[in-house]
Amino acid sequence: MENNNEKLEKSRHSLAHLLAAAVLTKWPTALIGIGPTVDNGFYYDISTPSTPTPHDLEKLEKEMRTLASKKLSFVRKDLSADDARKLFTSQPFKIELIDELEKKGEPISVYETGDAFVDLCRGPHVENTSEIALDGFKLSKIAGAYWRGDEKNKQLTRIYGLAFEGKKELAAYEKMIAEAEKRDHRKIGKDLDLFTFSDLVGPGLPLWTPRGTMIREKLNDFVWELRSARGFERVAIPHITKRSLYETSGHWDKFKDELFKIVTREQHEYAMKPMNCPHHTQIFAHLPRSYREMPQRYSETTMVYRDEQSGELSGLSRVLCITQDDAHVFCRMSQIKEEFFKIWDIVDTFYGTFGFNLKVRLSFHDPAKMEKYLGTPDIWDTAERALREIAKERGVEAFEAPGEAAMYGPKIDFMAHDSLGRQLQVATIQLDMNMPERFDLFCTNEKGEHERIVMLHCATMGSIERFLAALIEHLEGNFPTWLSPVQVRIIPVSDKHIDYAKIAASTLSKEGVRVEIDESSNTIGKKIRDGKLMKLPYLLVVGDKELTAGTVTVESRDKGSLGAVSVPDFTASIKKEITERARVAK
Amino acid sequence: MENNNEKLEKSRHSLAHLLAAAVLTKWPTALIGIGPTVDNGFYYDISTPSTPTPHDLEKLEKEMRTLASKKLSFVRKDLSADDARKLFTSQPFKIELIDELEKKGEPISVYETGDAFVDLCRGPHVENTSEIALDGFKLSKIAGAYWRGDEKNKQLTRIYGLAFEGKKELAAYEKMIAEAEKRDHRKIGKDLDLFTFSDLVGPGLPLWTPRGTMIREKLNDFVWELRSARGFERVAIPHITKRSLYETSGHWDKFKDELFKIVTREQHEYAMKPMNCPHHTQIFAHLPRSYREMPQRYSETTMVYRDEQSGELSGLSRVLCITQDDAHVFCRMSQIKEEFFKIWDIVDTFYGTFGFNLKVRLSFHDPAKMEKYLGTPDIWDTAERALREIAKERGVEAFEAPGEAAMYGPKIDFMAHDSLGRQLQVATIQLDMNMPERFDLFCTNEKGEHERIVMLHCATMGSIERFLAALIEHLEGNFPTWLSPVQVRIIPVSDKHIDYAKIAASTLSKEGVRVEIDESSNTIGKKIRDGKLMKLPYLLVVGDKELTAGTVTVESRDKGSLGAVSVPDFTASIKKEITERARVAK
Repeated sequence: MENNNEKLEKSRHSLAHLLAAAVLTKWPTALIGIGPTVDNGFYYDISTPSTPTPHDLEKLEKEMRTLASKKLSFVRKDLSADDARKLFTSQPFKIELIDELEKKGEPISVYETGDAFVDLCRGPHVENTSEIALDGFKLSKIAGAYWRGDEKNKQLTRIYGLAFEGKKELAAYEKMIAEAEKRDHRKIGKDLDLFTFSDLVGPGLPLWTPRGTMIREKLNDFVWELRSARGFERVAIPHITKRSLYETSGHWDKFKDELFKIVTREQHEYAMKPMNCPHHTQIFAHLPRSYREMPQRYSETTMVYRDEQSGELSGLSRVLCITQDDAHVFCRMSQIKEEFFKIWDIVDTFYGTFGFNLKVRLSFHDPAKMEKYLGTPDIWDTAERALREIAKERGVEAFEAPGEAAMYGPKIDFMAHDSLGRQLQVATIQLDMNMPERFDLFCTNEKGEHERIVMLHCATMGSIERFLAALIEHLEGNFPTWLSPVQVRIIPVSDKHIDYAKIAASTLSKEGVRVEIDESSNTIGKKIRDGKLMKLPYLLVVGDKELTAGTVTVESRDKGSLGAVSVPDFTASIKKEITERARVAK
Repeated sequence: MENNNEKLEKSRHSLAHLLAAAVLTKWPTALIGIGPTVDNGFYYDISTPSTPTPHDLEKLEKEMRTLASKKLSFVRKDLSADDARKLFTSQPFKIELIDELEKKGEPISVYETGDAFVDLCRGPHVENTSEIALDGFKLSKIAGAYWRGDEKNKQLTRIYGLAFEGKKELAAYEKMIAEAEKRDHRKIGKDLDLFTFSDLVGPGLPLWTPRGTMIREKLNDFVWELRSARGFERVAIPHITKRSLYETSGHWDKFKDELFKIVTREQHEYAMKPMNCPHHTQIFAHLPRSYREMPQRYSETTMVYRDEQSGELSGLSRVLCITQDDAHVFCRMSQIKEEFFKIWDIVDTFYGTFGFNLKVRLSFHDPAKMEKYLGTPDIWDTAERALREIAKERGVEAFEAPGEAAMYGPKIDFMAHDSLGRQLQVATIQLDMNMPERFDLFCTNEKGEHERIVMLHCATMGSIERFLAALIEHLEGNFPTWLSPVQVRIIPVSDKHIDYAKIAASTLSKEGVRVEIDESSNTIGKKIRDGKLMKLPYLLVVGDKELTAGTVTVESRDKGSLGAVSVPDFTASIKKEITERARVAK
C-alpha cells in the first residue's frame, strides 16, 4: 500500500509538470530544464523571454489550478532516444538530457499530462490530476540557478512551489516558516548585537562582540563546571601542526580537501587543525602512563578550521572557524562504560537546562564503504557492540544509523528537537579504537604489561557557533538570566534619579549581576520599549516613589510586572535565579 | 679615556688570536677561519685534523697562557692584497676574506703577536699580552659551525672561550650561568610537567599539559580580573582572515615574511593573524559609535602566529604560536591619559605580585627609517609628545629608545629585571594614530560631528609563553600557592591512613584548593622528597597521631616545617594565601 509520503511526493512531482505546462502556455518559446521535488514542494528551472514577476506567478498558479481541475491523466511512455529527440526538437536542455541517457544506455521515458503537456521523466506521478489538492499548493518564490548547477552554464530562473496534503498542512507549514524567520539567529544575532561579519575578514568568520562573547564564555563555563566535577583537566594546543601528525592520524589522507594548508617560508608543510584529537594524543603520549593514572581526561575549548566551500557558508550554522568544546578521554577497555555514563550525565544536564528533548542515535559505519574509515571490520564490530550495550544499560531508546560514524569510530549522537520541532545533531560521544593503534597509545597495567588503551571523543555543545544558532532560534533570543549578556537595565524616570540608579546598580554589580543604566534622554516609554527589544530579563524603573521607598519597580521579561521590590530583595532573588541557572518560563 | 668595556673587548679579541696561535702550534696544518668576540668572551672557527677533546682544550688553554705571559706586543700592519695573500698562502679561508676586501676596495691589515702569530684583522687589540688577565679566561666548549654560517660551506669547529676582567669576574659569571641553567625553564618545565613538544607536531609549537594549562589559566584569570574591574569586555575573533584585511591595515606589506599564508580550495588568499588589532577594528566599526559609548575596551587572550625561522625557535622564549593577552582601547584623544593610567595600574599590580622591578622605556620611531613605519612624521611627533607627557605626569623615570616603536605607533614598554638581574621586555602600551586612519574609525561627538579616534594596544603578559619562561626562571619553578597547579599533596604514612587523607582532601577541595593524595607504596621519606622535587607549596603528612587529633602535619616549601595544624585551620590559612595571591617568601 502506498504511504502518505509517497503520495505527497507524486503529487509534488506532478505539480512540477503542471508548472512547466503553465509556463509554456504563457511563454510558448520558453526553454524548460528540470523540475524535481524538494522537502516542502517542488521547483522547475526555466528560461523565459522576461523574468517572471509576482503577478506572473499568480497567473501561472491559476493556470496550474485550471489544468489540475481538468482531471488530466498522467501516462508514461517508453521510447527510443531518436523518438524522444523528435518530441523535444525545440527544447535543447531536454535534448542534452536525452543524449546523456542514451550514452549511459539508460531507459528513456516521458509522461503525458492529458494532451496539455509532455515531459521527459522517470516518474512516478499521480495517475490523474484529480489526486492533487487544489488548495494544498502555491508558487512561493523565484531564484536564479545555473543549468545543472554549473556556473559555466546558462543562468535559468527557478520557480519554487510549496505543496502539501491540503490547505491545513500548507498553512501550518507557512506558519512554521514565518516563526522560523522571526527566530532566525542571523536576525536576532544582529538585533541583540551578538556577532558580526566583516567583508575585509571574509565570510564564515564571525567576529564576536562583547555581548556575544559573554554568552560564549558563560556557556563554556557551564560545560567546564560539569566536566571539572567529573575529573576532566584542561589542556592547550596550537592551531597548526606539521603534516606528519596528520599522516600518522590518517587525516592527511581522509580529510585532505577540508584542511587549510600552509607552506612556511622554509618550505615546510603545515596544516591548520580540523580536529584536536591528534594533538591531544601527543600530550597523553609524552610520558609513560601507569594504570593508576588512567583515565586521563583532557578538555579544551578551541577553534578548529575547515576549508568549506564558500557557497555552503551560512550565518553561524556553517563557518570556516568552529569553536569546539572538545574533550578526549584516554581510558582502559574496562573503563569505557563508566566514562561514557559520566559524559552522558553532562549531556543530559546541559541540554535539560535549556529544555531540549534529546533522542539518541547510534551512528555506525557503513560496511559497504570501508574506504571512508580507518581500521578493520573487527575493530568496528567490537566498538559498535560496546555502544549497543552501553545504550541498553543506560535504558534509553536508541536508533541505529549506519553510515553516520566518524572516520575513526562509531558514535552515540544526541539529536535535539527545538521549540519549532526541528531536529539537530548536538552532542556526541565517540568510541575510538583506531587512533590509539595509529599512535601506539598504551598504559602499563597491574602486571607490568603494555596494555592498548581506547579514546573517547566527546563534545557537549559540539560547535559553539552551531549550538548558539540553534539556541537563539529555540529561545527566540530570550536567554535565561544566567546567560544574558546584560541581566538588568535600570531606567531612571528622569535625570535626577540617575544617582539613585547608580547606587542600585552598584549593589547589584557587587554581587556579580551584569547591570547597566539607560542614561539617555528618551521618554520612559521609549526606554522600556528599547529594553524589551533587547530582550533583557529585567528592567528596573526608578523614580521619586522608588527613591523614597528604597525600592525598584520590576518589569520581568518572562513574568511581567512584579511591582516594587526592595533593592536587597531583588538582588537576592536574581542571584538565586542565576545560581540555579533557572530556565526561561514558557 | 678608554672605558672598561672597550678594554675587555680588546682583551677578548686578543685572546682569540692567542687561541688561533695555540691551535697552529698544536696542529700546524690546521686551517683557521675567523675569531670574533662575543658577549662573554670570544671564539675561533678552525679546521683541525681531529676534533679537539676536552684534554686538547686544556692544553690549548695552557699554551695561550704561556704565550700571554711572554708579554708579546700586538702590532698592526697595513698592506696590499697581494702582500696579504703571500702571507696566508696555506690558509684558504683567509685568502677568501682578502679577495673580498680587495673587491670592496677596503683597507687590509694584519696584527702580529710578537713573532708567534700573525692574523688578518681589523683590530683593535691590546698593545701587549701583559694587559690580559691570565686568570680571567678559560676555554669553555666546542661546537660545529659552517664557514660563514652557510650550511653549503665546509663545517668547522668553533672553540669558545670565556674572558673577563679577572678571576672574580669570571667566577661570578660562571656562577650566574650555573644558576641560570638550574633555572632554565625548559628543564623546570619538564621536571614539573608543564608543557611538552612533539616531533610530529613540530618545533616552536608547545603542547600544554594539564598542569601547565592550569598556570596559563590562573595567570590569565588574574589579568582578566584586573581588566574587568576597569571596564574591559571580552571579544573573540578567528585566527585567519582574507588578505584584504591586512592590505588595509598595512600588515600585508610590512609584515609579509612573518605571515603564515593559506590558499583555500577555491584559491582565495588568507593569512593567519600575527596580531589581533585589525580584526578588533572590525568589531568596533560594525556599528556607528556615539561619544557616549567611548571608550570601547576589548580584551582577548588568543594565539597569534608568526612564521619564524626554525633556527630561532627555543623553548617557550621563541615559538611559532604566541598566546597574547591582548587588549585594545578605542578612545577619544581627550581620554588617552586616563586610559593609559588605567592600563599602567594593571601592569604595576600584576608585576608587583611577582616581585619584578619594572623600568619604563619610551620606544620611539627612528626618523632615519620611516619606511619601517605607517603614517606621517607629524602623526609620530604628536603621539610621541603625548607619551612623554604621560610618563612625566606618572612621575616615573623613563628612558627614550629611538627605533623601538611598533610599525603603527610609539610605545611605553616595561622592562623587568628578574632574580638573576637579567632584563626582559614584558608589558607594553602603544599609542596608535595610524590604524584609526586606515580603517576610518570615528565616533560621533557632542556636536554631532565625526571625530577621529585613537587606539591603544596593550598586553600585560605580552606573550604568555615568553612571560611564563621568564617567570619560571625568576621563581626557579617555585610558583606562589595561588598559581601552583597542585597546591597541596597529602602524604599518608601508611595505607590505613588513606581514608583520613581522603577526608582532609575533600575538605580542602570543597573550598577550591587543588589537592592530591600520594597513594603510592613508597616510603614516607621518598614521598616527601617527590613532593619537594615537584616544588609543591604544601605537603601534609597524616599518620596515627594526626588521625587521632584531627590534624595534619604541615611541611611548607617556603616556610619549612609548621607542625600539626587542624584541617579547618590549615584550610582557612591556605585559602587566605590564595585569595591574597601572596608572594613566595625569598
